[in-house]
Amino acid sequence: MAEKPNLLVTSSPVGSRLEELSPYAKVYWLNDLDEKELDHLLPSIDCMLVQAWWPDSLNPERISRMVRLRFIQSGMAGVNHIPFKHLGRRVMVSSNAGGFSTGVAEFALALLLAAAKRVVKLDLALRTEEFDPSQWPNLFREVMILRGRTLGILGYGGIGRSVGSMGLALGMNVMAFSRHPSPGGGVQVSHGEEGLLRVLGKSDAVVIALPLSKLTVGLIGATELGAMKRDAILVNVARAEIVDEEALFEHLSKNGQFTYATDVWQIKRGRETYASKFPLVKLPNFIGTPHVAGGSAASTGEPGKIAAENLLRYLGGEPPQNVVDPSEYI
Amino acid sequence: MAEKPNLLVTSSPVGSRLEELSPYAKVYWLNDLDEKELDHLLPSIDCMLVQAWWPDSLNPERISRMVRLRFIQSGMAGVNHIPFKHLGRRVMVSSNAGGFSTGVAEFALALLLAAAKRVVKLDLALRTEEFDPSQWPNLFREVMILRGRTLGILGYGGIGRSVGSMGLALGMNVMAFSRHPSPGGGVQVSHGEEGLLRVLGKSDAVVIALPLSKLTVGLIGATELGAMKRDAILVNVARAEIVDEEALFEHLSKNGQFTYATDVWQIKRGRETYASKFPLVKLPNFIGTPHVAGGSAASTGEPGKIAAENLLRYLGGEPPQNVVDPSEYI
Repeated sequence: MAEKPNLLVTSSPVGSRLEELSPYAKVYWLNDLDEKELDHLLPSIDCMLVQAWWPDSLNPERISRMVRLRFIQSGMAGVNHIPFKHLGRRVMVSSNAGGFSTGVAEFALALLLAAAKRVVKLDLALRTEEFDPSQWPNLFREVMILRGRTLGILGYGGIGRSVGSMGLALGMNVMAFSRHPSPGGGVQVSHGEEGLLRVLGKSDAVVIALPLSKLTVGLIGATELGAMKRDAILVNVARAEIVDEEALFEHLSKNGQFTYATDVWQIKRGRETYASKFPLVKLPNFIGTPHVAGGSAASTGEPGKIAAENLLRYLGGEPPQNVVDPSEYI
Repeated sequence: MAEKPNLLVTSSPVGSRLEELSPYAKVYWLNDLDEKELDHLLPSIDCMLVQAWWPDSLNPERISRMVRLRFIQSGMAGVNHIPFKHLGRRVMVSSNAGGFSTGVAEFALALLLAAAKRVVKLDLALRTEEFDPSQWPNLFREVMILRGRTLGILGYGGIGRSVGSMGLALGMNVMAFSRHPSPGGGVQVSHGEEGLLRVLGKSDAVVIALPLSKLTVGLIGATELGAMKRDAILVNVARAEIVDEEALFEHLSKNGQFTYATDVWQIKRGRETYASKFPLVKLPNFIGTPHVAGGSAASTGEPGKIAAENLLRYLGGEPPQNVVDPSEYI
């Protein structure tokens, strides 16, 4: 009988039950290993489950000693944190696309509705006793009725499609920007920079659900923001770096009726950070939450289950799903 | 040819185009009349369109001189502001039920999602730089995934049904409390105090969409709040007085994971007011907006159109729709 492959698992703040993997692999938890044990183990690791961000302890030098590593399953939907340039071509990486569809799509809808209905801004005004009743009739005109409006979705994977079906259920017209062909169901899909500008220009609300890669970093800059309607809503549940932060800050400062609502933040020195030289959180037309959408979905156990299933597929000798193209990340 | 009936129209902060009424009635705008003109006109008024709250100028003494008044069309969905006890039995009153379904239901969904996803609380923590990253994993467990959860709807009229279909589209189980029989569509309808407690006890989120009347004032008190799940969400887009304010404040103070989100406020001295001896707006598990849901729907023109159509039905000699029972309001 062949020896079981060695699987190294990195921890997640949400945690995950992985008993189902032990019949198929010898499972090592990174957090249980001291430096010496880790160094001893590295050359024998065959595959990894990276549940959250890439761990600092697995630096480039250590990665270079993982000579048997062939497969990495990401616990997160995005894989932009995986150090592709140090892994080399022989390591296959699978994203956890689909695992977060419901939880993150619900969160995107929450941010979209909070922006459309001015919930955060109005609650804050009442809470700080700065609400001016004489402005009441003007508020009605600010509040956006979504039925009959156009929802643009950038990236039409698991999360994007789930947001799309929610938009259709609310009576919105749904347009998508994707490099893949239309999935049908009454949703028009546009491609390329021209397609992107068309979706942005026609939409009353836009949800970003793209992976962060070489192809999407800084995709939404001054030109793209300028193509949007003056009172549009832009929701980001993907990665902060898809939007040019300086252009965004300038656009929000100049267009008081435009709202940006985000759950995701710039990564600085390997960690997501809410501080910025552009004080977005102080703007009245900004809504921010500290990247909880994915974690809320993970706490249901669903993403962990889907990641484990794909890892089992690999361990059982089947081709894993959602393998990404490293050239889009190097 | 018979003389056209005299129609008195009171103004709304949103406004409404009513050109379509002038072929069928002689239209007088309350705001255009001085005291003397109003007093002269009162005995000849046949019907009224009350677009927003009942106007102060039409006090009980003046109402007693409106001897020809036979019909009042409310511009708002609720009619609790109509002075039934001074009108007497010969005046028929129609609510504008149905006119606000989409706009108010969307707003209810916005409040529900803002509460479920902790959007207001998390945005405020980032905005005030009080966010504690060490609490991050605990936040995931606070954020509620709606799919598979139970949504209770109190009052299954136009707004309630619209909220119900949104809940079903999000994959929620929907239960309703109503005095009317089940409309079908997979929604179980409960009746009476026992039915109310059953819906409250089983629901993860509850939306109040009842009219305020003798039958519903103070309906949600300490017993009803106590029957709800400890981490449930209660959304009010109907009227504040349906919930006992003191019991609510006590319940929120004692149950930090319970959230109350409201667009409606207690009426004091004839006006809605955000101030209270119970400082709800200071609580972290409270979300409040200054009664903008109905106004946002009205600004689309839809409620004005539906109210005008019902008034035209009356003026054309047909029985108007949504006539209310005055005994529920006196």
